[in-house]
Amino acid sequence: MKIDGTPYRTIFPDADGVSVQVIDQTRLPFAFELKRLATLDEAADAIRTMVVRGAPLIGVTAAYGLALALRADASDAGLDQAVATLTATRPTAINLRWALDRVAAHLRPLPPGQRAAHAYAEAGRIAEEDVASCRAIGEHGARLLAELAQAKGGRINVLTHCNAGWLATVDWGTALAPIYVAHDAGVPVHVFVDETRPRNQGAALTAFELNAHGVPHTVIADNAGGHLMQHGEIDACIVGSDRTTASGDVCNKIGTYLKALAARDNAVPFYAALPFSTIDWTLDDGVAGIPIEERAAREVTHLTGRLDGGGFATIQVVSPGSPVANPAFDVTPARLVTGLITERGVCPASAEGLLALYPERRRAA
Amino acid sequence: MKIDGTPYRTIFPDADGVSVQVIDQTRLPFAFELKRLATLDEAADAIRTMVVRGAPLIGVTAAYGLALALRADASDAGLDQAVATLTATRPTAINLRWALDRVAAHLRPLPPGQRAAHAYAEAGRIAEEDVASCRAIGEHGARLLAELAQAKGGRINVLTHCNAGWLATVDWGTALAPIYVAHDAGVPVHVFVDETRPRNQGAALTAFELNAHGVPHTVIADNAGGHLMQHGEIDACIVGSDRTTASGDVCNKIGTYLKALAARDNAVPFYAALPFSTIDWTLDDGVAGIPIEERAAREVTHLTGRLDGGGFATIQVVSPGSPVANPAFDVTPARLVTGLITERGVCPASAEGLLALYPERRRAA
Repeated sequence: MKIDGTPYRTIFPDADGVSVQVIDQTRLPFAFELKRLATLDEAADAIRTMVVRGAPLIGVTAAYGLALALRADASDAGLDQAVATLTATRPTAINLRWALDRVAAHLRPLPPGQRAAHAYAEAGRIAEEDVASCRAIGEHGARLLAELAQAKGGRINVLTHCNAGWLATVDWGTALAPIYVAHDAGVPVHVFVDETRPRNQGAALTAFELNAHGVPHTVIADNAGGHLMQHGEIDACIVGSDRTTASGDVCNKIGTYLKALAARDNAVPFYAALPFSTIDWTLDDGVAGIPIEERAAREVTHLTGRLDGGGFATIQVVSPGSPVANPAFDVTPARLVTGLITERGVCPASAEGLLALYPERRRAA
Repeated sequence: MKIDGTPYRTIFPDADGVSVQVIDQTRLPFAFELKRLATLDEAADAIRTMVVRGAPLIGVTAAYGLALALRADASDAGLDQAVATLTATRPTAINLRWALDRVAAHLRPLPPGQRAAHAYAEAGRIAEEDVASCRAIGEHGARLLAELAQAKGGRINVLTHCNAGWLATVDWGTALAPIYVAHDAGVPVHVFVDETRPRNQGAALTAFELNAHGVPHTVIADNAGGHLMQHGEIDACIVGSDRTTASGDVCNKIGTYLKALAARDNAVPFYAALPFSTIDWTLDDGVAGIPIEERAAREVTHLTGRLDGGGFATIQVVSPGSPVANPAFDVTPARLVTGLITERGVCPASAEGLLALYPERRRAA
């Protein structure tokens, strides 16, 4: 998508044909900077410190990280070590493991001397597939939004949580892809953006990218969404998914579940938009089965932002001496999800719904 | 309650017998400072800028504000003007109007020369009644917590939202009064404290006062409560109420409704603790009938806190140029509320429940 009129992707091959460039998302929304990743450690650090974030982008970055690692050590042991290092950076993100498994499986049969170049090319293919997949999600979801706008006879308001926009993918996004496609097609759509504490990805990233693309939007505290739904201010919710179970449970940024409850209580349709790579076909019960990453207390106690006079500062906002808990994700049970928007279409959030879109996953009884 | 071993109230008569002292809550949790209010404008400013906040404390401060106004102009016109000025400071808080009506009604029959002194004394009586009322709420609620702890056979976890502690009242608090009474009686209770964006009263004030009193607690992002309830980490929720309808709807800090939905979805009891002065006997449907205060965008876009090196800074956290909405309260329908804890006891959140506790409010059919 565009920033100041220039089309960008969040990750793209460097001109050197070996390393990759990424948008440094820790500097957004106040500064737009690219960062070059040239080693395994730089790629792992970029994932760990959220220079890149969002399930699909993490997967692509990990794939490139593997290519970078193999430049230094293309042995089987080096490959295994690199996969282990990258897998450990964000334990909840299933895309990460999916991308690493795919690239590693592709490389193992190859002689070590060919592995780095093949990994680099394969990472590029994953990136292209992600763009196509997100674009397809956008088209399927945009049809839902167009129907809602037509039924309402005017501008629709969509609530989203966290950042599942193009900054979380390579391009287009997942939850925001339907919004971009609808907006570009002239459907009048306005987005309520949850700020998404504690890391404020909504306030910083979703607001930034919607603003850069010219989509009307309003930032709200995470606490406000239920009130807006009670008063008819929200026509649909669309969120992303870091991991989707075979039964349609959606593991997404902490707080998603609360919005799904409010949507249900107010008869507002609640959609999760996701590529097939986030689907964990081995899991049914997301609440019981998905381990939730507990992140640092400092994400809650401190915030970094821009000073009025310029420059940046980090401030403490929690009373000194008080302990903090910081679970990063929660699970929205399928019963609260109106539908899943995937690159193959929209389906009910259920095992049957997903299997109808992905019949190749049916097992013989 | 105590701070560093010294007992305090949030508002108390100054030694001059004319003005009042308040704890400046905008300086908490990093600095503990008192502020002297000597004029109507200082009292109105203290309410408007949240030097004092919390429904009961706002009511007492407004009553003292009236006394201060009458020192300058004790005429009927002066009285009316002061009531209007103070009423306008926080339109949602029913206590404020209740306290002003009570003091004004007491004063109108008096000759102007006696009004200021009588108003000051009446404000003091309102403060004493608030302390007694909060203490009674604490005792009724503590019995519920003791029962939960006994049934569980161990430490119970209570979630609270915003600050409805002693800092929101004159002493003891409303939602936190049961916790203080139970804790002091040896009931093992731990509190999960919602940070409560956008003003962070939970992270700043509830955490501060629980820490100062020695009550075990953990601060969480507002987004985390649903996840904790899904995993059995919360045994009860207790929140305050800025305004309670005759049918038991609870208008409280924005985000309360989302926690009530999660509590219902996970069979966690959800209580609102409130003094009778927050009950609006004229209203049945809180969602339709209570006007919700829309506060400044800057409360969402900017945060003030302590720099690591000392000193304070205000930072911007929302992407520049993005519009913001900031509704300050929401309404939790009575159907989601397990019970109301008042100074007269615990009742179902219903017209019949409230009338059983307040039979003098029954009207002849």
